[in-house]
Amino acid sequence: MVNAVEETADSPEPCVVGVDYGTLSGRAVVVRVRDGAELGSAEHVYAHAVLDRALPDGTRLPPDWALQVPTDYLDVLRHAVPAALEAAGVRPEQVIGIGTDFTACTVLPVLADGTPLCDLPEYAGRPHAYVKLWKHHAAQAQADRITVLAAERKEPWLARYGGKISSEWEFAKALQLLEEDPELYARTERWLEAADWIVWRLCGSYLRNACTAGYKGQYQDGSYPSREYLSALNPAFADFVTDKLEHPIGQLGDLAGTLTAEAAAWTGLPEGIAVCVGNVDAHVTAPAAGAVDPGQMVAIMGTSTCHVMSSDQQGTVPGMCGVVDGGILPGLWGYEAGQSGVGDIFGWFIRTSLPAAYAEEAAALGRDPHEHLTALAAGQAVGEHGLIALDWHSGNRSVLVDHDLSGVVVGLTLSTRPEDVYRALLEATAFGTRTIIEAFETSGVPVEELIIAGGLTKNALLMQIYADVTRRPLGVIASTQGPALGAAMHAAVAAGAYADIQAAARTMGKADRGVYLPDPQRAAAYDRLYAEYQLLHDYFGRGTNDVMHRLRHIRAEASA
Amino acid sequence: MVNAVEETADSPEPCVVGVDYGTLSGRAVVVRVRDGAELGSAEHVYAHAVLDRALPDGTRLPPDWALQVPTDYLDVLRHAVPAALEAAGVRPEQVIGIGTDFTACTVLPVLADGTPLCDLPEYAGRPHAYVKLWKHHAAQAQADRITVLAAERKEPWLARYGGKISSEWEFAKALQLLEEDPELYARTERWLEAADWIVWRLCGSYLRNACTAGYKGQYQDGSYPSREYLSALNPAFADFVTDKLEHPIGQLGDLAGTLTAEAAAWTGLPEGIAVCVGNVDAHVTAPAAGAVDPGQMVAIMGTSTCHVMSSDQQGTVPGMCGVVDGGILPGLWGYEAGQSGVGDIFGWFIRTSLPAAYAEEAAALGRDPHEHLTALAAGQAVGEHGLIALDWHSGNRSVLVDHDLSGVVVGLTLSTRPEDVYRALLEATAFGTRTIIEAFETSGVPVEELIIAGGLTKNALLMQIYADVTRRPLGVIASTQGPALGAAMHAAVAAGAYADIQAAARTMGKADRGVYLPDPQRAAAYDRLYAEYQLLHDYFGRGTNDVMHRLRHIRAEASA
Repeated sequence: MVNAVEETADSPEPCVVGVDYGTLSGRAVVVRVRDGAELGSAEHVYAHAVLDRALPDGTRLPPDWALQVPTDYLDVLRHAVPAALEAAGVRPEQVIGIGTDFTACTVLPVLADGTPLCDLPEYAGRPHAYVKLWKHHAAQAQADRITVLAAERKEPWLARYGGKISSEWEFAKALQLLEEDPELYARTERWLEAADWIVWRLCGSYLRNACTAGYKGQYQDGSYPSREYLSALNPAFADFVTDKLEHPIGQLGDLAGTLTAEAAAWTGLPEGIAVCVGNVDAHVTAPAAGAVDPGQMVAIMGTSTCHVMSSDQQGTVPGMCGVVDGGILPGLWGYEAGQSGVGDIFGWFIRTSLPAAYAEEAAALGRDPHEHLTALAAGQAVGEHGLIALDWHSGNRSVLVDHDLSGVVVGLTLSTRPEDVYRALLEATAFGTRTIIEAFETSGVPVEELIIAGGLTKNALLMQIYADVTRRPLGVIASTQGPALGAAMHAAVAAGAYADIQAAARTMGKADRGVYLPDPQRAAAYDRLYAEYQLLHDYFGRGTNDVMHRLRHIRAEASA
Repeated sequence: MVNAVEETADSPEPCVVGVDYGTLSGRAVVVRVRDGAELGSAEHVYAHAVLDRALPDGTRLPPDWALQVPTDYLDVLRHAVPAALEAAGVRPEQVIGIGTDFTACTVLPVLADGTPLCDLPEYAGRPHAYVKLWKHHAAQAQADRITVLAAERKEPWLARYGGKISSEWEFAKALQLLEEDPELYARTERWLEAADWIVWRLCGSYLRNACTAGYKGQYQDGSYPSREYLSALNPAFADFVTDKLEHPIGQLGDLAGTLTAEAAAWTGLPEGIAVCVGNVDAHVTAPAAGAVDPGQMVAIMGTSTCHVMSSDQQGTVPGMCGVVDGGILPGLWGYEAGQSGVGDIFGWFIRTSLPAAYAEEAAALGRDPHEHLTALAAGQAVGEHGLIALDWHSGNRSVLVDHDLSGVVVGLTLSTRPEDVYRALLEATAFGTRTIIEAFETSGVPVEELIIAGGLTKNALLMQIYADVTRRPLGVIASTQGPALGAAMHAAVAAGAYADIQAAARTMGKADRGVYLPDPQRAAAYDRLYAEYQLLHDYFGRGTNDVMHRLRHIRAEASA
């Protein structure tokens, strides 16, 4: 318990290590159990990054593939953990537990002992032997069939995913494996999340975590999709759950096991310390931001945005990514929604639309281009640019769940300037978040407060726009390492330092609350623009004018 | 007649001078009567350019005003005409006539002797005393009333203007004068086009030309809008036609008079040579391009596009700028339509959206930015960029006649590049021209061929897109001085060297026919994209979603 760790200033304080596995690197942070102070951190970049064009042996990959190499994950343990300890000035024996979080759904096929198929020399040239990263989008055909069949059969779990199963998730990716490389499918003894694989490597035992099992593995009310359903998808898929997927599930913050001698050697940590059940980067950030009460929505805003929130209400929110019992905090319904393009869109605009004169002026003022356009846009009154944009340059995850939608700008004139379009794009993403919040509230799940994490928190104009557009107070996480801090907090719970995540979050979690408050006048002005956004959202997004799908189809034909 | 001028190589050949009055400068060209050869030219830039912020004495102007100073027009006669003669190596006595063309509707208030009110010292500080340039857009409120009242009263002339009277035209601008400066209105003895004023200065007598009288002065079937109608607009406006506007009308190519001694002194030309009736820059270009047959549409493509065509069919084309008996060629119905933003939109894109890396690459390759983006876009298959744009950044002149519409881009993704958007904008203007052509054909006025004049003819990709999108052979004018050449041709007719404009056009006019032919495959691909353009055109342009007007209204409020 937290009081137990309050000692004299001289005596070594208990610490925990959190390891955050991102898309391109892993980051370890050493955190003081008593107060969540981040004492030191280190990053290790994956040697193989993302395989999206070829395997390490040169085997070419088709479009939309995205693979990773599991040894890169072990290298993070070998390099980043010891480096973080050193940076923190913390001795290994102070560390009482280690926790991890991972991108998801990031899945791989392994043998019964956890050996990845890609580590077997005979499969080094087989794409399906590798880790399928979350953004592997080549299983769309399978995902479409999964959704259509579930709707036809009225499968009860479909509504828990907003009515649509993503090509990113466990079943779609496994079905792709079966149908494209049946030999490897047959050789697969376990199909599991990298989030659980890394915990297995740390403590020597395999336990599925409740978060990915629910959000990515379609595990609801104690069971997976039925054998009959799977058989109807593909007869050879009938036993997928029983043969390869099903396994005991651990709740978030549970002890998965203790650190093995091998993993102790990798990390420099003491053998036998607590290893926590796996978790997901977005979801673990909610308690890191102290958001453990119903109605507190955490938006992790980076290249894309993930919205997570716990609630004591169970609702069916159209277009959400999922609702999972204990998916964020044990004992509450965990909701997830998302916007597939946010910072990515702003970055695209800078890359493709920033005139030389602006770049030069930014450089002369010592601003990066985002800061410069933000500064130029900040002085405008709401609506002064005369524009409305749709933020679908990377598709729409919630609430339309349609990756083939695209971006729109309406209202361009010969007087429109780059800072005008930039501001319209910032606002469009805020309208996208409001659309998600309204879907929650309409479904009986209240959203009372927004707490923002991720790289975009540094843009104060963007934050104020979100407060004004959503008419909600905006808090900001007070850590730049939200996911790793969250993972470390879960380790503290697994190690017994706190009774539960809520208790850990109240002491170790960090957010500044109410940093941005909605301004009533601006909020009223944004209500008018949001009404325009809604009109265009439904016109282009709900099939009234299906031009975006037709343009994508024409584009594919023309490019062929 | 043309044969009369065929002499021996040594004897001096008859020539004519054409003077083209543009928005920022006047250009004189010396043309050989026998074959239309352009022997020399010179340009004179107006000292006062466009007054859109203040009068020469510093008096501030409200938004949307655009004025000019008439002495600048005389300076063109003093400087450009002698310089062109010198450049041509032509002796003054070879010149048998002078013709002019002007921007329109460009109007001014004068005394009975032609003295502009702004030349009177007591009115130098009064904005309404100056020339109102074609792009003076501050009479929109008057124009709206003119249209609404005409529709209510079912005025027969309204349909001749596509159902809408522009704020640029003679009645709207005169009504603004009356209502905002009644003292100056009372002092106005003649309200006339600059096109006719300059001819009056050249030959000493005032004659209205059939082109501006019809297109800009609402003169149809031998009469102007009635006294009853004018009185209903504003009782003080009842006698506007009889007091200030009505005057004998000359047909295009008619002799207006002969050069006065004063004008001979300005220009260095012989006193007594033929001075031709005034004309308009766009309209005079049709015969310069040899387009004198029904079904030959001439598109003068620059910052905006003006479409002119003569036909033996009288039709009511929705959204056309006007149909005027003898408005382009005596004896035929002259049609005018237009797109208010074309090259302006491409220029705006370069100015606001060309990244530094592209500018540098263009410079390294020795290309201007337009050439560079065009070269990058040229290799694409139709539809490969996945975009559809609406070309309304400067509003829509035909067929929607709505200057408060704005531009749209649909289909943006994180892969969209500058050359993709640029090409989509080129195509959007081609779709705009196709919309106009289809409005003509639907109204029973066939369009068989396009002949392009103006600065944009140099962009071969743009020209090919127009051929493919419109499925019509594209000719290109073979003169870079289309309007001035056309003015000179009319002078040759006025001087008696040709029987009529048609005869002059066949000998002196210059176009390369069928330079760009539609490619059936690309045309078919464009049919699909044009169908998408039409859907969006009607959705945003015909009131289904009036978002553009609402955004403009919100913008105005926010800027106030």
